[in-house]
Amino acid sequence: MATPPPAVKVYGPALSTAVSRVLACLNEKDIPFQLIPLNMSKGEHKNPHFLKIHPFGQVPAFQDDHISLFESRAICRYVCEKHGGEKGNKQLYGTNPLAKASIDQWLEAEGQSFNPPSSTLVFQLAFAPRMKIKQDEGAIRQNKEKLKKVLDVYDKRLAETRYLAGDEFTLADLSHLPNIHYLVSSSDHEDTAALFTSERENVSRWWTEISTRQSWKNVIDLYPKP
Amino acid sequence: MATPPPAVKVYGPALSTAVSRVLACLNEKDIPFQLIPLNMSKGEHKNPHFLKIHPFGQVPAFQDDHISLFESRAICRYVCEKHGGEKGNKQLYGTNPLAKASIDQWLEAEGQSFNPPSSTLVFQLAFAPRMKIKQDEGAIRQNKEKLKKVLDVYDKRLAETRYLAGDEFTLADLSHLPNIHYLVSSSDHEDTAALFTSERENVSRWWTEISTRQSWKNVIDLYPKP
Repeated sequence: MATPPPAVKVYGPALSTAVSRVLACLNEKDIPFQLIPLNMSKGEHKNPHFLKIHPFGQVPAFQDDHISLFESRAICRYVCEKHGGEKGNKQLYGTNPLAKASIDQWLEAEGQSFNPPSSTLVFQLAFAPRMKIKQDEGAIRQNKEKLKKVLDVYDKRLAETRYLAGDEFTLADLSHLPNIHYLVSSSDHEDTAALFTSERENVSRWWTEISTRQSWKNVIDLYPKP
Repeated sequence: MATPPPAVKVYGPALSTAVSRVLACLNEKDIPFQLIPLNMSKGEHKNPHFLKIHPFGQVPAFQDDHISLFESRAICRYVCEKHGGEKGNKQLYGTNPLAKASIDQWLEAEGQSFNPPSSTLVFQLAFAPRMKIKQDEGAIRQNKEKLKKVLDVYDKRLAETRYLAGDEFTLADLSHLPNIHYLVSSSDHEDTAALFTSERENVSRWWTEISTRQSWKNVIDLYPKP
């Protein structure tokens, strides 16, 4: 008899940063999932069926037996709350209120301070060239300056603790993986990669540690080969 | 004998939107607090003592007996987790994993989709005139268009449920109060107020309901009188 497909469904292309944030979390928690591609160039994310799951018409959307959800960081929190003590990495969203508060704090710092400049740079440096869109040099310069200030704070923090929220790898670190991956591997912008790989001792050590986890390698394996 | 001051300290001016998000939560949960002003025009948020609590040098920062925290939405989550079943509004961050997931989803929608355009408009329409900074009409126009698209999604959602995350007032609604307050009361931009008060039936009903709660009136009472 054939095994039934996994109950967890993730809609969207793996190479979307928000989709791969969720995939990293599912891998870290050892939760099997189906990745359901959406043809975004044909506007499948705007059709009425999909808008019932994701009213903003974005990716990822997520379903399991009990719930449909959107917003990658909310999906990650839900996956950890549901499978907290039982499957995969049990520290990922903390095991007590003080640990969870520290994780939420750095996860919000990622969403509010790190993501705005870094996602603009991901678009400009990694996606615009593939889409044959002219790069906006002013936006690149301005957002690189903003990002440096955030990374200076991270570097001080990571001199005191091994990971952002403390001594364990958590959702707060995981949430940074997709954007940094693109910025480090957009090969014609070595000065951007250097922000993470050489200019800041503690950020570099942290990036090497978090990006070599098996869970993240499993996500990268889902990216289409160039 | 004098009563000792409350253990909970919030650093920052009440009229900061992020500070008043935390104050609304503390009021909703009936938690006494000390509001500790910071003179931001004198750079008190950048001095070394304050940077130990908030490494980004922003407001609010938060302390209680056990922890120092920054990031308003993380502080709100912590306050609810700590006092969940015991004090004030017990539904504010849900009472089960499915309710919490829905709240996190709409709280992330606020942070990622609603806040970027609305906080730019708050700065341009409410703060720039007080600070004698010239308004950027292009930024106002562009962010108003972005905000309308978000509010169209909200209006559909609020046709189905009384509040964003379901039938109860939660952190997801509360988190919108500070920005909308400024946009509705910046009196020389009636067309911006109308986005919330008349153009969308369900959004208008929702705004009236959430903004007339006693917890929010208590926060407004802390704003300096014009």
